[in-house]
Amino acid sequence: MRDNPTVTTERTRIRRIPEKAATDLADLYAVLDAAKVAHVAFVHDGHPVNIPVACARDGERLLLHGSTGSRLFRTLADGAAVCATVTLLDGIVLARSAFESSMHYRSAMVFGSAVEVTDKPAALHAMSEAWMPGRWETLRPPHAKELAATMVLELPLTEWSVKLSDGDPEDPPEDLDEPVWAGVLPIVTSYGDPRPAPDLRGDPPVPAYLDDWRP
Amino acid sequence: MRDNPTVTTERTRIRRIPEKAATDLADLYAVLDAAKVAHVAFVHDGHPVNIPVACARDGERLLLHGSTGSRLFRTLADGAAVCATVTLLDGIVLARSAFESSMHYRSAMVFGSAVEVTDKPAALHAMSEAWMPGRWETLRPPHAKELAATMVLELPLTEWSVKLSDGDPEDPPEDLDEPVWAGVLPIVTSYGDPRPAPDLRGDPPVPAYLDDWRP
Repeated sequence: MRDNPTVTTERTRIRRIPEKAATDLADLYAVLDAAKVAHVAFVHDGHPVNIPVACARDGERLLLHGSTGSRLFRTLADGAAVCATVTLLDGIVLARSAFESSMHYRSAMVFGSAVEVTDKPAALHAMSEAWMPGRWETLRPPHAKELAATMVLELPLTEWSVKLSDGDPEDPPEDLDEPVWAGVLPIVTSYGDPRPAPDLRGDPPVPAYLDDWRP
Repeated sequence: MRDNPTVTTERTRIRRIPEKAATDLADLYAVLDAAKVAHVAFVHDGHPVNIPVACARDGERLLLHGSTGSRLFRTLADGAAVCATVTLLDGIVLARSAFESSMHYRSAMVFGSAVEVTDKPAALHAMSEAWMPGRWETLRPPHAKELAATMVLELPLTEWSVKLSDGDPEDPPEDLDEPVWAGVLPIVTSYGDPRPAPDLRGDPPVPAYLDDWRP
């Protein structure tokens, strides 16, 4: 791996509640690795557009998965400046007042321009491993026309910011005797029971690797 | 309520997989009501910026909650064109091939410009009810300086699109005999056990209304 390529710029310096800013590359990677979708904003015909895109981190790049048939995705591939943002909600902070109540979250913002990957099969494999670890090897290889219909972009992880919020309520002293419960209500994301496809044939077992997946 | 004010424009017409487009206002409301955070994209100094913002639908407007101390939020209040996108992930679709595998999601995109609300206390009440139903009445009223530090914007729900994906795997006939399990793995979001604040005083009970909250 190269040295940490991160740059700090005017737009990645966190001004608002800067004590929640994280600056370690490991923090960025952890947020991106926990996300399946990034919201990718860019300017199209003079207006902001913000599309949800399936994403996966692969080393020092954020992979973005789309279709060659998508007009907006082709705009991205043409090198539009983007801001890709990932946000994970982890809880509700119930303070003694509405004003101090807030949320637990992990959020990352990546600026830059995306380009088409030059290693599409490897990139697709990496994305499959990120979303469905262990499954790629059990599937038939992609057909050539499937590869041709798929567009994979990579956004370098160089200009970014991360904000993490995971604390207890921070009520001012004069509110501590308010007669109200205060604390944190965690938000938990999990997988439910797998539901077989109605047209499933031959009664294959539910794969064991599902037990290891984390949403 | 006014008549449905929705307009269809070039940028809200869904071109990509149009059979997943939803056009009922009720579908838009359902997606927004299930979201706590919108990703709000706008152009700032010529570049796209995409910030996560606590949101709540209130009638025909999407309320956005921020701080008067936030430079980016003030840019929004100045009438910048925005694209606010909400995405909820509901499952992984495990098809027989990587190519046909996908996700269950509900996604809404709202275009327009936000303005400061003229009814800030009522708007804050509405947001509190959306996030923490039943709690507002148990809290002390906001102080004047808290109201002054809070900025609430409203984005009209006029120009929007919604996309819903909730189907079974759609493998082509030639893949149906692939020796692999196929189906849907639901993603479930729930609240965990409430965790009291370390500085909680007087042993107030965990409020009963928490049982009715849905994340």
